[in-house]
Amino acid sequence: MNEFDLIQQYFSNIGPNVVAQSSLQLGVGDDCAIVKPSDGFFQAMSVDTLVADVHFPAKADPTLIAERALRVNLSDLAACGASPRWFTLALTLPEVEPNWLKAFSQGLQAAAAQFDIALVGGDTTRGPLSITVAVHGEVAPGQALLRSGGRPNQLVYVSGSLGDAAAALQFMNKKLSATQQDAGYFMQRYYRPEPRLQVGGVARMVSAAVDVSDGLIADLGHICKRSDIGATIDLERLPLSPALQRSCSEVQALELAATGGDDYELCLLVPETGRSQFEELAAQFGLPVTLIGNTNRHSGVQCLYKGSPHEFTTTGFTHF
Amino acid sequence: MNEFDLIQQYFSNIGPNVVAQSSLQLGVGDDCAIVKPSDGFFQAMSVDTLVADVHFPAKADPTLIAERALRVNLSDLAACGASPRWFTLALTLPEVEPNWLKAFSQGLQAAAAQFDIALVGGDTTRGPLSITVAVHGEVAPGQALLRSGGRPNQLVYVSGSLGDAAAALQFMNKKLSATQQDAGYFMQRYYRPEPRLQVGGVARMVSAAVDVSDGLIADLGHICKRSDIGATIDLERLPLSPALQRSCSEVQALELAATGGDDYELCLLVPETGRSQFEELAAQFGLPVTLIGNTNRHSGVQCLYKGSPHEFTTTGFTHF
Repeated sequence: MNEFDLIQQYFSNIGPNVVAQSSLQLGVGDDCAIVKPSDGFFQAMSVDTLVADVHFPAKADPTLIAERALRVNLSDLAACGASPRWFTLALTLPEVEPNWLKAFSQGLQAAAAQFDIALVGGDTTRGPLSITVAVHGEVAPGQALLRSGGRPNQLVYVSGSLGDAAAALQFMNKKLSATQQDAGYFMQRYYRPEPRLQVGGVARMVSAAVDVSDGLIADLGHICKRSDIGATIDLERLPLSPALQRSCSEVQALELAATGGDDYELCLLVPETGRSQFEELAAQFGLPVTLIGNTNRHSGVQCLYKGSPHEFTTTGFTHF
Repeated sequence: MNEFDLIQQYFSNIGPNVVAQSSLQLGVGDDCAIVKPSDGFFQAMSVDTLVADVHFPAKADPTLIAERALRVNLSDLAACGASPRWFTLALTLPEVEPNWLKAFSQGLQAAAAQFDIALVGGDTTRGPLSITVAVHGEVAPGQALLRSGGRPNQLVYVSGSLGDAAAALQFMNKKLSATQQDAGYFMQRYYRPEPRLQVGGVARMVSAAVDVSDGLIADLGHICKRSDIGATIDLERLPLSPALQRSCSEVQALELAATGGDDYELCLLVPETGRSQFEELAAQFGLPVTLIGNTNRHSGVQCLYKGSPHEFTTTGFTHF
């Protein structure tokens, strides 16, 4: 099978009604993809590489690898308040295995259809297994959520629950035991993180946003650094799933929630005056949020546990 | 050095007046890059991955690796007749070596400045050395050059000269000997291919285009397949550099020119009635072109040498 047959067979029609999409002028198979951006909108773009045995186990189910590759990228669009439009896929494979490719393309199709984003182009190369997805979304001028928009005396929220994906990694590494059902839940959270695209509906109430990929303390730290503020979080407020609470001690659960990455939940800053309106809008748009702390005029992220400072030995995933 | 320092130090200001670019709303360092597309234009995008020891020698000069990574992507924009605007970089590194990164970022800056394209975002990950560049350009509606636009009885042109990059690979593999000066020329052609962006100036005279990345016969074959036509090329017309003519026999030179990839010259189809106007415009815009054959109603690419059919044992680079 050559590259062209491979693309034709597995990657030529991924996404919602690709052919019908009025914004798509030319999809997979030419030198470039050509799309028609919406006049008057800005374009948000993000790229993430997932390397085998660094970002996922090489032997993992290819359907889940594909779901994860697209979902973690969509999370970046969510963190900017942008709506998904197109994506490209650069896939490096040690060899062509039709069963692997079929399962991979099914995962890609499932996530692309669910989140309404079309695969418009890409590249396939031979080499160590690695997946680079680049997503493109659109956002109205001035409406993008930035890391730099935070101010002192704002409220810190997170979406969903934290620590579940980190629990999945610990479970895979046999450092945590869980019932079959809870383990299954953790694995879903790791492989199929939920890009919180609903945030677009509450964006006007939000000052700054980041997605929790490296760990809450690390990622809130990015907001603090770029906004030139500090933040305090109350550990006992961190939203923990029932599965996480069942599977480990409170201390362990809070450490996973505060420092574990890969949940791809959003961390949002909201002005105090907007609190009730933000919470109402979030409920209306189906975005579960929990208030976990406040920002201040200092720098960095401080954790309190029942009012007393608490430090963790690690603060998040480091890439090198 | 963590990922954030690395990005700040080596990749925060690559491209022409990045900060001043009115189209750039938000560059490196947030969840997404945010750009302002030009109203009324289409966007062309292309992505290419270069894997160490597959697409370049792992030990090669990092400045040249970076130049090549960006230039081969720009060639895809050229092949669509699009003007470069933004690019992203996903860089996978086995380890952080400041000297390597410094040299790499210098090469990236040199090519970005020369071709007026700004680095707006990316990702750095740990793993086997691999570089994925995604380029974005703009093109007026209906002006994009497609592989599918060819018709029978058109003229086949190529830009520049062919076979030089293939000669560089043969030289590196000690299968070809050359003077130091000629070898240096071949290496430049391999590492610093010229994206023929001038084609934008002659686009209205061109029916179909492709860049020669896999080999002339293979890439012209892509045009033929998507345009549902055939083509005949006269091997003795293929443009050969003086260095190539000096370094090997005519037969060997023609084989490299017809089947060797990596030159990133353009192959263009032009209606017969447009011949003189096309050639005049090409000269005016500084695009060197050579007429090498014709299209027909058959399928596939046939090579003639002094009027007789000639077949090569290989027709181009296969990816798997």
